[in-house]
Parts: sequence; structure tokens; C-alpha cells
Amino acid sequence: MASTTASDSSVEAIAKAAKEAFEQSQLLPSSVRNEALAKIKQQLELRKDDILAANKQDMEAAQKEVDAGRMTTALLKRLDLGKGDKWDSMLQGILDVANLPDPTGTVSYASKLDDGLELYRVSCPIGVLLVIFESRPEVIVNIASLAIKSGNAAILKGGKESTRTTALLASAIAEGLAQTSLPPAYIHAIQTRDEVSALLQLDRYIDLVIPRGSNALVSNIQNNTRIPVMGHADGICHVYLDESADLQKAVRVVVDSKTDYPSACNAAETLLVHESLLNTVWPAVGKALLDAHVELLCDTATHTALSSAPSISSHPSFPSLIQHTPNDTYTTEHLDLRLSVKAVPSLAAATAFINAHSSHHTDTIVTENEAHASAFCRGVDSAGTFVNASTRFADGFRYGFGTEVGISTGRIHARGPVGLEGLVIYKYMLRSSAGEGHVASDFGVGEGKKAFTHAPIQASKVPW
Amino acid sequence: MASTTASDSSVEAIAKAAKEAFEQSQLLPSSVRNEALAKIKQQLELRKDDILAANKQDMEAAQKEVDAGRMTTALLKRLDLGKGDKWDSMLQGILDVANLPDPTGTVSYASKLDDGLELYRVSCPIGVLLVIFESRPEVIVNIASLAIKSGNAAILKGGKESTRTTALLASAIAEGLAQTSLPPAYIHAIQTRDEVSALLQLDRYIDLVIPRGSNALVSNIQNNTRIPVMGHADGICHVYLDESADLQKAVRVVVDSKTDYPSACNAAETLLVHESLLNTVWPAVGKALLDAHVELLCDTATHTALSSAPSISSHPSFPSLIQHTPNDTYTTEHLDLRLSVKAVPSLAAATAFINAHSSHHTDTIVTENEAHASAFCRGVDSAGTFVNASTRFADGFRYGFGTEVGISTGRIHARGPVGLEGLVIYKYMLRSSAGEGHVASDFGVGEGKKAFTHAPIQASKVPW
Repeated sequence: MASTTASDSSVEAIAKAAKEAFEQSQLLPSSVRNEALAKIKQQLELRKDDILAANKQDMEAAQKEVDAGRMTTALLKRLDLGKGDKWDSMLQGILDVANLPDPTGTVSYASKLDDGLELYRVSCPIGVLLVIFESRPEVIVNIASLAIKSGNAAILKGGKESTRTTALLASAIAEGLAQTSLPPAYIHAIQTRDEVSALLQLDRYIDLVIPRGSNALVSNIQNNTRIPVMGHADGICHVYLDESADLQKAVRVVVDSKTDYPSACNAAETLLVHESLLNTVWPAVGKALLDAHVELLCDTATHTALSSAPSISSHPSFPSLIQHTPNDTYTTEHLDLRLSVKAVPSLAAATAFINAHSSHHTDTIVTENEAHASAFCRGVDSAGTFVNASTRFADGFRYGFGTEVGISTGRIHARGPVGLEGLVIYKYMLRSSAGEGHVASDFGVGEGKKAFTHAPIQASKVPW
Repeated sequence: MASTTASDSSVEAIAKAAKEAFEQSQLLPSSVRNEALAKIKQQLELRKDDILAANKQDMEAAQKEVDAGRMTTALLKRLDLGKGDKWDSMLQGILDVANLPDPTGTVSYASKLDDGLELYRVSCPIGVLLVIFESRPEVIVNIASLAIKSGNAAILKGGKESTRTTALLASAIAEGLAQTSLPPAYIHAIQTRDEVSALLQLDRYIDLVIPRGSNALVSNIQNNTRIPVMGHADGICHVYLDESADLQKAVRVVVDSKTDYPSACNAAETLLVHESLLNTVWPAVGKALLDAHVELLCDTATHTALSSAPSISSHPSFPSLIQHTPNDTYTTEHLDLRLSVKAVPSLAAATAFINAHSSHHTDTIVTENEAHASAFCRGVDSAGTFVNASTRFADGFRYGFGTEVGISTGRIHARGPVGLEGLVIYKYMLRSSAGEGHVASDFGVGEGKKAFTHAPIQASKVPW
């Protein structure tokens, strides 16, 4: 793994080297990738003290930024690699990734086209990934592990606040890789935004961009490249309380969706309440939200209903935490203990509202009506459509993927939480074992022309 | 199906209407889509005479363009809907698509996350397609069929030379759709390039662009939109004659790859010859190519070898059809009876050359060496890697997909010939049937926290 702070002019060389490293790696057995993960883990263990010392320096510099009001405490906390079991989790993560099944080399379609002519569609890596992330330095290790496991080369750029830490993590990765037959340019760390800008233009070498960070970071990247981008900018998730919603489920699902981790992309930002529930379920849900210190941005109907409920008017947070909705509330990702609320007259209205305002990430219905559950799951056009379950379940680990590359709100390739499967594509291999080879002009309609057989072949691997 | 020649200002309304039509269609049973295909076929049959008369007018106008030197005869021929069995094939194509398995609603992953909490990943349409094609008017029917079958809404733009024909085809599609419960805006035909330009900016409504036409058309679209584009600009395919190539296979595969249909994207444009074959296999292949009137653009080594072979120096096409390679020959898609030729010293050199110059569409090795076949198929980073078979086999029908949307040289979502599978993505549906609903804060590490079950569920359909 090479590391650089070179000028823009050398960025093309970096991208070209990554592509060549990717191409060279295609003939290596996949076992070398697991070997690389083991070596990287070993190097990180050997260099633990240095890395944590560098991380302390990053933390001290960041503390000054926090003191000067230029950085949030939340960001500072994410920087800390020595906290709790974070270091051990990072190392365990490498092992976990190594132990996942190889996502490459698997046949998903195989067909005998003619006697001696066999077609195989086999999973393979995508190519060169450009991964851009912010603050949490351990992400470089996570992403390098995922890239290596899936057979992709990667160029990685961390946040500037973790420069010292990521530089040492990167060099440990480089030393691990150097002990294997994977090319050194296979994983490459870059340091500057200018390099990122230049790389985003190099669609000849870079095959997929994965940004992991703020809405601003992701939007900026989406607007400045023709390379496919996998990820999400917004996470505007909805909970809809249907006419038949069970009160207790409504309270539990809404409170969890909003408060379990408010700054996560899968936290709920908007609550839709069927108007028949305004004086029954809604005040109970509203009270539970106020108990959890959630600020409620209500439309007129939900505001009026709430204000007139006895359990609310006597609440210590009344009226301070109950506001009228600002104009842009339904397109705002609050990422905080704040929830937009709106009354709707029907399931169809809720579905249409969600389709118009959701970021197509994850939306939930609370209902006892099976037909409504089905219509919501099919009618809401989001990566996740849930029934009586918190939006917070939208997560690769919770879905059972072991680890996740990120969550995609895109509509092609991969949608929702993306595991290793999202880092592979496929290619078609066709082999003629006939005595004279196979040519297309032998097939067709008319005298002497052959017809295709198209007989399925049972195979999980390509046999040659 | 609505049709328009409206100004740019109404283009957003068209896109929005298509998205809403898509959303509304999500709750209709998939049987309505097959019903729509049947009705469309019926309408086309009813209006056959009018349509063929309009096509004749288009042909007459095009003939004037050809006479004036502004259009090629090839383009004129593609316009002809009355020729041979083209009309019947078009109608049969609708039936064929209707008879394909429904690509939506299929579960590809299902897991019990906890007692009463079930996750399903189910295939679903992508959304709104923008399809831009040139000259062949029947493409509007093919593509409308594929979009309807896969549950996607579509906005379609044909070539200006077929305006009269496509307008009538479009109105027959509209009349067919109107007899079903699919919304009228589900399939919409537009007429102008300005509308296309405006639509390419509307990534809020358009989910995938599928251009089918010239390199210039596709490149232009790829450079002017942030909406994902599925297709290919170039088709620079290679044939590599390996050291152990069988002479007869070499001749057959090279000639077919080049001459079976030279203007197709899967025709070979470059031939790489292992240098040990220069005075053996290469002259035989060269002679067969000259017999087929193929112009050979040779590097020094292949030129020298060919010129000194007795079978060549006595050939009627010698030396007229044998040229030295121009500088840009290896990045040129000839689309004609012209082939770039180069000698290479090894399989590794051939692989590296192909990876650097191929458009990653389809490349073939001719070899008797199993290890070389395997290394070529894995090492060449293209959508199709073939052994002893013509590049011309890279085609959805030949692969057994029944029909094809196009051929993708992209690295995500779909690669190579794309069937209906390329027009779907998936969504995750999660349902709690537990008495209190499911919340994420109940899960985790520590006292009283639950662990995820992650037990596979055997299901091909979502059970609610």
C-alpha cells in the first residue's frame, strides 16, 4: 500500500496504478486475500502503541478545534480509537470479514448453448473503489478489509482531523500487504481533497465511489462525477400510524425509530398520523415522545389535538417542545431529538406523501390490518418498507450480512444496507470445446443452420 | 400513453407524471401487465395499415435524405417496418416478452431476525426509464414491452427520421394501455432532443437512462446526466491467437468475429497474434480475412510476416488490403470490414494490451491450452471472456435471455447482454408479528438485551 500527498498531476498515476494492481490481482487465488487480512491484523497488533499515540495527538488537536468552536464534541468522540473496545472491535472486524464466504467466483447462471459450448455467469470484483470517509479512523481498516475480501483495489481518503492516525493505520496495512503477493498499489491512501476532486474525473480508472459521511459530502460527490456513486445523502425516514394501529406498538415503534440513535440515517424524521387517531393514539405517542425530550414540529391538526389532550397540557415540556411546522420541515433530516408530524386522511395519502418526501431509505407502517401492511410495503417506493418494526432495523448487521459497506438509496446495483455482495458484479465466460471452435454464423433460421440448446447447467463454479 | 411535442417547460410535468404513474402501478397485480401487452398487440394489429402507410412516408422522406447524401442507405434500411417478417416479428416479440417469467416479486434473501420478525428481499421494478433510440421504429414496441413486463414506467424517444411511424406506434400503445388499469402516463413518447436534454437533468424523477444508438449518442448522454446510464458506447472486441491456437479454429473464430455482422458492437476490431504464429497460423488467418475482403491494419511484425507469405503475395487483394496501422487504430471501433492486427510476445502481454485497449465488452482467446484459457477468462477484465468461440455470441438471445434490453459495458448493476433482470432491483420488507412490535433498542450486548436469530427462511414470495 502506497501513501501520498502528491500534487494533482500525479493523481492519474495513482489511479492507473490502482487499476493495474486490480488487473494483476485477478489471477491470484482468493486465498491470498484472506492471507492479506491476517497479515494486516498482525501489523496492526505490532504497531498498536504507535497508532494509539498518534490518535492521542489527533484527539489533542481536535480538542483545540472543539474549544475554538470549530468542531463538535460528537466528531471528537468519533475520532477516539482508544475508547472502550474500539481497538479490539476493529481487529475483530478484520477476522469477521476474513471469515465471510468469498463473494467472488460464484456461478449465478450457466447454460449449454450448443454441444461443446458452455456459458457461465460468474461473480467477480468491480475494479477500483474510491472510498471517502470522515472522522472515524477505523473506517480505513474496515473498508480496506471489505475491498480486499471482495477482490477490489481501493483508494481511500479519510477525514483531515484523523490524519496522523490514518497515516499509521495505512502504513500498517501497507506492511501487511507487502508480505503477500498482492501488488502494493492495491490499496492506496490519499490525503487531500484536491486529490479526491481529480480522482472523481478519472472514470477510466475508478469504477465506483463510496462516500461515507455527511449529506454535504455525499451530495457534493454525486454532483461532481460521472463515476457511479453508492451510498445515501439523506435519510428521511417515516413512521405512519395507520387507522388500525395498536397503541402500544405505535408508542414503542415511534419512540425507538426517533430516539434509539437520532443522528443515524435510519432514524425517523417524520411521523404521519391517520386522522382517526388524533385524539386516541396520537396523544399517547406524543406524550411518550415528550417524555423522551423530543421536540415535535406539528401541522395544525396534530398540534390542535395534542394541545387539547389533558395528558399533554399538564406535561412539563408543554408547550415548549411543541412547535408549528416550519415550511421545509418535511424535507429536513433533523438528525436530532426533533420530529416532524402530520395528519393524513388515508393509507393512500400516507403512501403518496412518503413517496413524495421520503429519501427512499426506510419507512414503517404501524397497523393491525394485513391488507394495509401489504399495500404499504408494495406501494411505498423505498429500500426498506417495514411493518410494526422500528426504522432502526435498516442496517447490514441487523439484516444478517455480517458487515456493511454502507446503505444505498440508489435504484440500481444495490439498495438498502449493502454487504460484500454490493462490491461484486459478474462476467460471462463462454468456452467452446468443440473440434472446430464455435462461430455465430452457424446458427440461425434456414437450411443447415443450428438452433441454440439453452439447457441449464448445474454448477456453482466455473469448471476450468 | 400520452404523446407530446411540448416545450421544455412542461418536461418536468412529464417526468413527474411518469413517476406518479409508476408509484400508482405498484399496487396493481402483475397480471395487468400481461393484459396490457395483449391489448397493445391487438391495437397494433388493428392499425397495421395506417402504421405501414406512415412508415412508407418516413421511408420516402428518408430516401430524399439519402439521395442528398445526408443519410446512409444502412439507416434507411433499418427504418423499413414493412420489410420481410419485420412486422410479424415485432408482434411476436410482444408475445415472447409476455411469456417470460415475471421478474418482479421474487424473494432472493429471507431471514428470521427474531421470533416474529421476518425480513424479505424481493425483486421490484427500478422506477422510471428514459429510453433513447435511433432509426429502427419497432424498438419503441420492444422497449415498451420490456418496461411494462418488468413494471417500470418509461419515457421513450425515437429517431427523428421515424417520427411518423413512431407516433402511430405510440398511439397504438396508448390505446392498448387505456384498456387496462395502468395509468396513461405509464408509457410516454417524446419527440425532441430538447426534451431529452431537459429530462437528463431530472434525476429526481428518472431512475435509469438506456440509450440505444451510436457511440456519439451514448457518450453524449453519459457526459450530460447524473442519472445512471445503462449501455455501451464502444464495442472494441479482441481476438487473441494464443501460442497453442489450432489453425482451423483460429480461422473460423477470427473470420466470424469480424465478418458475421461487422457493424455490430460484438464484432471484433483487433486481432492479437502470438509471435510464434507469425509464419504459421497468421498467414492462413490473414488469407481467410483477405478472401472475405477484410482490410488489415497491421503492425510491423504482422505486416512483414504477411507480406512474405507465398499464399498472400499471390492474393488478388495483396497489397491493396494490407496497410500499416495508423496511430489510433487500437482505440478505433471500425464497424466495417477492417481489422487492426498486432503481434504480442505472450499471454500476459495480450491480457495487458486488451485490458488497456478493450472497451470491456467481449474478448476471445483461441487456444488449446486449458491453463491459458482459464488465465485469459479471469485476467481479461471484460463483460464477456470467451474461449475458441466468436465474439458474436455476446448477445441476450444467444445467451438464452429470450430478449435483451441492450449490452452493458458498465461495472455495476448489469454487465454484458442485459435481459429483464437488468430492469429490476429489490427492496427489503420487514414485518413484526410480535404482540408489541419490534424495536431496535431491545437488541445488543448486555443484560436483558436480545441477540438476532438470523435464521434463513425458505420462501420464493413474500407471504403477506
